[in-house]
Amino acid sequence: MTRQELIDLIKRKRSFLCVGLDPDISKMPQSLDGDKFAFNRAIIDATAPYAIAYKPNLAFYEMHGAKGYLAFEQTIQYIRDNYPEMLVIADAKRGDIGNTSRMYASSFFDTLGVDAVTVAPYMGEDSVTPFLGYDGKWVILLALTSNRGSADFQMLKDTQGTALYEHVLTTAQQWGTPDNLMFVVGATHGEMFRDIRRIVPHHFLLVPGVGAQGGSLAEVAQYGLNEDCGLIVNSSRGIIHASNSDDFAQVAEQKAREIRDEMSQMLTAHKIL
Amino acid sequence: MTRQELIDLIKRKRSFLCVGLDPDISKMPQSLDGDKFAFNRAIIDATAPYAIAYKPNLAFYEMHGAKGYLAFEQTIQYIRDNYPEMLVIADAKRGDIGNTSRMYASSFFDTLGVDAVTVAPYMGEDSVTPFLGYDGKWVILLALTSNRGSADFQMLKDTQGTALYEHVLTTAQQWGTPDNLMFVVGATHGEMFRDIRRIVPHHFLLVPGVGAQGGSLAEVAQYGLNEDCGLIVNSSRGIIHASNSDDFAQVAEQKAREIRDEMSQMLTAHKIL
Repeated sequence: MTRQELIDLIKRKRSFLCVGLDPDISKMPQSLDGDKFAFNRAIIDATAPYAIAYKPNLAFYEMHGAKGYLAFEQTIQYIRDNYPEMLVIADAKRGDIGNTSRMYASSFFDTLGVDAVTVAPYMGEDSVTPFLGYDGKWVILLALTSNRGSADFQMLKDTQGTALYEHVLTTAQQWGTPDNLMFVVGATHGEMFRDIRRIVPHHFLLVPGVGAQGGSLAEVAQYGLNEDCGLIVNSSRGIIHASNSDDFAQVAEQKAREIRDEMSQMLTAHKIL
Repeated sequence: MTRQELIDLIKRKRSFLCVGLDPDISKMPQSLDGDKFAFNRAIIDATAPYAIAYKPNLAFYEMHGAKGYLAFEQTIQYIRDNYPEMLVIADAKRGDIGNTSRMYASSFFDTLGVDAVTVAPYMGEDSVTPFLGYDGKWVILLALTSNRGSADFQMLKDTQGTALYEHVLTTAQQWGTPDNLMFVVGATHGEMFRDIRRIVPHHFLLVPGVGAQGGSLAEVAQYGLNEDCGLIVNSSRGIIHASNSDDFAQVAEQKAREIRDEMSQMLTAHKIL
């Protein structure tokens, strides 16, 4: 998916909502008997009118071994077959030496056919650039994450007072462009979006941490929206596990619609629609 | 595997060699028809007398989807069944928010039953500690990696002149101990092992980058060995793909034996044996 296609999709659907497909069996209705692919299908069908992206996190599939990996593949294929307009993000947080990152890139882009992969920056340029060599595909690089541990290293400052996550934002712009590179910035750092937008005015930001993790959509939008929207905001538990009963898909639809309605107003207020 | 069991294993086998099980189909003999599990079995049987650890890198399996993941599981099981004394390291470089890292930890330790997982530190404490809560299991945290990109962020210095990787070494010692935490330090930084040993005198270090990547085993041993050995040195391509023909296992055995012989001398010279 190109940047322009993504912007068009956001405007057409009046939404910048990404649904995190992170199913937790203990929160799925018993009637599904732990079938994560069946759960995802129901969630996808219910939320597709209100979302522009789906983001399965690999951990929730790998934990079941090869069987879980198959549910991941089936989920990707189901979206590709039924909702081909959607941005599909593999939340994998990979990153390895160049030789090995090339394997991961091929795995996600060639074998699975996803549009975007989250990548960890710790190992530097040759761990990231192999993911950037695919037309219409995206790297989403961790910059400032939504969790408490983001303070441990990401906020360490150098002699000029520049934090590590700011170095990541700056340095990575030598590797990729707003056409193939996005950044992860957690919603839990609402006000810091203002400073981050100074460093990356044009790049799309993938924003986790709204909902269960306590981030504010209003704050993220206020400081994070740019002239093309420039935001993809993820909600996972707040949508997919809003109900643990057989009405989970209905409740997910309602939650997704509510967020879309909020986003639609924000896009209008910011004159993006 | 406990720390004492690991030290005993090293002394008994007069070796601190880890064999990286990173099979590249283009370098496997055609007669194997791309069967990575069959390749690994032959490599393991050939090198087991000389090694103390095996380290499959997930990328080389995930690239084939669920089928590849199965070959990974079969490889782990094969080592467990036939060489139960071996340290098995899943080279995954995972790391996510606490909730998700718990899934990964369960996946690797409960489901797969490996002894150790490599973890990326970028997301901080709550991304790492879920892996530390398992008796006899290990986190191997990326500190200073073997690739060129290690200079991009890992070597950034703060106002006190402390590099990021040094912060990782220091901070992580508040989370784990020499009994459940090791660090990745690339062999390509041979002389820096002296400074690193000042920060982590007792922790085991997993050292990739010997062989194909250009690191020197002699330099690593000179500066990196401690009173308990404290090193696990990995070689992958230099052993498993030393021959691309049907004699690959024989040649791998020979390469592994040569390295073991060198290591045995080093352990004696350093009065560890």
